[in-house]
Amino acid sequence: MSLDDRSAAQIRLDIREGRITGVSAGLGRNFVQANLAVLPRAQAYDFLLFCQRNPRPCPVVEVCDAGSPEPTGVAPGADLRTDIASYRIYEHGKLVAEVTDIRPYWRDDLVAFLLGCSFTFEWALLEAGVRLWHIEHGRGVAMYRTSIACRPAGVFQGPMVVSMRPIRAQDVAKAVTTSARYPGAHGAPVHIGDPSALGIADIAQPDYGDPQTFGPNDVPVFWACGVTPQAVALASKPPLMITHSPGHMFITDLPNTALAAL
Amino acid sequence: MSLDDRSAAQIRLDIREGRITGVSAGLGRNFVQANLAVLPRAQAYDFLLFCQRNPRPCPVVEVCDAGSPEPTGVAPGADLRTDIASYRIYEHGKLVAEVTDIRPYWRDDLVAFLLGCSFTFEWALLEAGVRLWHIEHGRGVAMYRTSIACRPAGVFQGPMVVSMRPIRAQDVAKAVTTSARYPGAHGAPVHIGDPSALGIADIAQPDYGDPQTFGPNDVPVFWACGVTPQAVALASKPPLMITHSPGHMFITDLPNTALAAL
Repeated sequence: MSLDDRSAAQIRLDIREGRITGVSAGLGRNFVQANLAVLPRAQAYDFLLFCQRNPRPCPVVEVCDAGSPEPTGVAPGADLRTDIASYRIYEHGKLVAEVTDIRPYWRDDLVAFLLGCSFTFEWALLEAGVRLWHIEHGRGVAMYRTSIACRPAGVFQGPMVVSMRPIRAQDVAKAVTTSARYPGAHGAPVHIGDPSALGIADIAQPDYGDPQTFGPNDVPVFWACGVTPQAVALASKPPLMITHSPGHMFITDLPNTALAAL
Repeated sequence: MSLDDRSAAQIRLDIREGRITGVSAGLGRNFVQANLAVLPRAQAYDFLLFCQRNPRPCPVVEVCDAGSPEPTGVAPGADLRTDIASYRIYEHGKLVAEVTDIRPYWRDDLVAFLLGCSFTFEWALLEAGVRLWHIEHGRGVAMYRTSIACRPAGVFQGPMVVSMRPIRAQDVAKAVTTSARYPGAHGAPVHIGDPSALGIADIAQPDYGDPQTFGPNDVPVFWACGVTPQAVALASKPPLMITHSPGHMFITDLPNTALAAL
């Protein structure tokens, strides 16, 4: 996939005006892409606390002021109501609509959260020469619900969801150190090897995404996944929750390296 | 100063029962020590958001459930109302009492925050062979209000406070990489060299702490400081705020290395 050389703001404008409608993978030259979660202010404290207590699955990149759709810290001038190609609207935990513009749903008490996304560490892995089967084969990663309980916060509780990538044995250490540099994008793996230690009965049957194919020297490597906060939030059946549609991330102005801890 | 070889829980018990009454520097073998800030639930969301938006001065280590004085994530079984040697009580931004037990002030709506502290990266610097003048001379660090505005959140806004340590020129790079490993304890320096770039007119006159003495090859190195959130919170004049007294930190069960990003 060839990279779009334009600025993040130019790409967001194309999304806002309907000229880009697909998934965001490969859009933009290494800008941080982020998961969107919008909740009413009444649920926002518990959700922010949940993220603080579970930073591996829920790395907070930005929290907008209540009522504001502008992520001033990571993309000043952007509008989170229009600058994502597709959104999902949930009421009391149920999907009720999939839309390209959430202005009709916007309210003064809504708080928009942007959470780091695996694209950042996958970019770093590829740059470091670590091969990723799902990218080479144009598939999604494999994701699994685990037996690891997140630390609860108020109304939010549930299991950690992980993503799994087969990594060549000789590259596992490099995959660990490379992803560990990006705590703002899930950081280091949470587990390497035996899936049963995470309560995963059958590695060939992911709960979300696509099954992966293992080479003879490949080891399953598991990272905390951004599906976790969305699954946990929806399980609490908030009156309203808005998210990006899968794969349709928000593109910030930050280069991926801005999330590097070191 | 010789290190106390006992567990953090044993040391906290001595503090709780009044057998240890002084500052916490040097207590315990490399346990994470933390700043305490207690605020009513009504101010807690804005304060947590302020910390999220200003992670260098305000690295959150733990947020207790509203009404709970037990930091289950970092010191299960501890009681934040008794396990710090000295506390300050502020009402509407004014210091009204300094006490050794805050149980009489405790309420069901209070939220206790623990924030990372410079002891963690100072320990790492010393382990790495970086000399620290104030430790060698038994003094405090120098701290300065700067012209850097923190990113505001709700009622909380104000300048970043920084701590400054003279570092030998040949050790500055090591000081940067070593402290950068600990984003949970202020992380890398925010500035190296010319104090005037931070709006500091006279390096010899710190706003808090002690002036430092510079050797011929020393460079002033500035880190974001945990005084920031306390100063910012008090400036908003919350009806009640409780903090540790300066130097009297909370000792967690976590080893300092638990805060390392990599």
